[in-house]
Amino acid sequence: MKSICGVEGVRATGIKEGKFGLALIEASGAAAGVFTSNLVRAPPVTLMEERVKYGHLDAVIVNSGCANAYTGGQGYNDAIRMGEIAGHELGIDPEYVGVASTGVIGRYLDLPRIEDQCRRIAPLLERSIQAETHAARAIMTTDLTEKHALVRGNGFSVGGITKGSGMIAPNMGTMLAFLYTDADLSAATLSAALRQASNRSFNRIVVDGDMSTNDIALCTATGLAGSPAPGEFSEVLEECCRSLAIQIAMDGEGATKLLEVIVNGAPSEEEAATVARTIVASPLVKTALYGEDPNWGRVIAAAGRAGVRFDPDAVDLVISDGSISCPLVSDGKIVVDLAAAKKTMQGKKVIFLINLHTGPGSATAWGCDLTEKYVEINGRYTT
Amino acid sequence: MKSICGVEGVRATGIKEGKFGLALIEASGAAAGVFTSNLVRAPPVTLMEERVKYGHLDAVIVNSGCANAYTGGQGYNDAIRMGEIAGHELGIDPEYVGVASTGVIGRYLDLPRIEDQCRRIAPLLERSIQAETHAARAIMTTDLTEKHALVRGNGFSVGGITKGSGMIAPNMGTMLAFLYTDADLSAATLSAALRQASNRSFNRIVVDGDMSTNDIALCTATGLAGSPAPGEFSEVLEECCRSLAIQIAMDGEGATKLLEVIVNGAPSEEEAATVARTIVASPLVKTALYGEDPNWGRVIAAAGRAGVRFDPDAVDLVISDGSISCPLVSDGKIVVDLAAAKKTMQGKKVIFLINLHTGPGSATAWGCDLTEKYVEINGRYTT
Repeated sequence: MKSICGVEGVRATGIKEGKFGLALIEASGAAAGVFTSNLVRAPPVTLMEERVKYGHLDAVIVNSGCANAYTGGQGYNDAIRMGEIAGHELGIDPEYVGVASTGVIGRYLDLPRIEDQCRRIAPLLERSIQAETHAARAIMTTDLTEKHALVRGNGFSVGGITKGSGMIAPNMGTMLAFLYTDADLSAATLSAALRQASNRSFNRIVVDGDMSTNDIALCTATGLAGSPAPGEFSEVLEECCRSLAIQIAMDGEGATKLLEVIVNGAPSEEEAATVARTIVASPLVKTALYGEDPNWGRVIAAAGRAGVRFDPDAVDLVISDGSISCPLVSDGKIVVDLAAAKKTMQGKKVIFLINLHTGPGSATAWGCDLTEKYVEINGRYTT
Repeated sequence: MKSICGVEGVRATGIKEGKFGLALIEASGAAAGVFTSNLVRAPPVTLMEERVKYGHLDAVIVNSGCANAYTGGQGYNDAIRMGEIAGHELGIDPEYVGVASTGVIGRYLDLPRIEDQCRRIAPLLERSIQAETHAARAIMTTDLTEKHALVRGNGFSVGGITKGSGMIAPNMGTMLAFLYTDADLSAATLSAALRQASNRSFNRIVVDGDMSTNDIALCTATGLAGSPAPGEFSEVLEECCRSLAIQIAMDGEGATKLLEVIVNGAPSEEEAATVARTIVASPLVKTALYGEDPNWGRVIAAAGRAGVRFDPDAVDLVISDGSISCPLVSDGKIVVDLAAAKKTMQGKKVIFLINLHTGPGSATAWGCDLTEKYVEINGRYTT
């Protein structure tokens, strides 16, 4: 079994009817969450920021099709009501139900529909790949594929499902992620590990630089598999989050290629991440990727406007498809073999490695190309 | 006469052969400049930052087709040489020649071609609309139209030509602007006025959020029309720069519509500008504009991630085509009449007015829609 059904103590289900989906995931244990940094945040995000302080969740209910965002006091009450609907069907305290929404902004939840869907799917909760796939599909909006991951640690597992494809930016795009582990951990340990793992995965993907009002990542630890070694859990969680984040970038709206930018030699990890994100977010780099044009000038120019100090005359830049690497700039000098460089861009994944030679900081960011299809998708979304 | 030929003491000429253009503009007087804030800056920018300290220019020479960027010490010597070529042909001290370049990054200047073009066009320098149009066309790259402006003050004029279409971001995109006035001003007064006018015009347009290595705006005051009233010159210069900036936004790569975002009620002008720029730069707002979709949710979400504090529940948002206005959000509540709102988006210009109700700061930013054509243009540029 792959994904969250590989984690002890997790059951899931979901339904998708037209653009309106509903997922239920049941798992009891210590819980932590990270949230959008957008000032305009949806009522379910506000609610979950409060509830996550309890450090415990028994289930989550997630709808797609309506973001319940910019809906004020009524939206907040609707989010509470969504938790009550799930709590009622599952026979658990609604205060320990996680609530998340994704979809169009500025519309109210259709609670009768959610109640009806919840009633129909609650009896179908089970620990199986089919049920889990129903949940992963239920939360999709413009996503083309469902996204899940499972990483095995030493005696424990971490699994997750996620959705996201547009409005993806550093600091959590329109992205929902539900992570589960059977490791036995306190809420505080879980929270610290989730924050770091999110920073190095979800916060390092950019599809269009827009940041959503609804982003949320929740992690629940059922504890059924015992205690992991301290550092090990963080590593396994980070690997799981990274796998999910890359799946989001690959499924970026209209995307045909995955872009991976590895920055070494920055003053710090945070500054390396800033440079890497600026490059993957650049429309000029993204269109060059689409055109299979090894336009190193756009990569260097994007690095130059990231607000991080380095010496442009000491930079190394290499392009790679993961097996063949081709230097573009060495020690600030252009060394590109254009034909060879173009060849590395023909596949589904293109990697830029840039070394700033100013310090020990390294970071990786992921994105995708910008295509006519992105414009088409987003020029017509609400209509 | 419109444009710089309306300014006393300015003569121009230019030639465009394939993608290689050369412009010469002769005007003697106090001079000031503003430059790209990209850390990676082209040698001609470095050279001009040094020369502008003299506070005097006699002419400028500008080539298109090659940006002379990321070309190191050779590029710097080539920029000096370009100034010498113009100085020799015009019989002036090369130290007082302004030099600027635009085009592909990472290639060396073709100096023999520049010398040949300069020799052929120098005798054609004149003060006429034809000659000035040749200059404006010579500096175009992906621009579809030449861009000029002339604003009359009380007894003096300010005129300018500019180019720019892609890689346009706050803080000067790939944009060259050459401004002239016949007002009599010191270099220090001119510099202060140019800095403020640029901040409120060129630094408030966004096409794709990328910031060029080569941006430069130079202003020369011939002094032939006498001294203007102190505040008046700044106003007239700002109006001229704003006219040029809007022309750049309208000619954004692949653009079909101009976007104007007016932010009122921010804590300060700078914070209003940050919110306005974030909205005009948002790919989701830009694609909604293209699709004529009055997607106020994307506008509010973009405002929310600008890093400026405000109360989302107190915001007013209005959409307008310049004559008919239609409220979208009032006091944080959705009030949109979708059919009426869509109607305001059918023309060539769409205005969003947002009031944050937190302070006295106001600012306007300009951009354009994001279309399939932008992707096509930038996916194939160097090939």
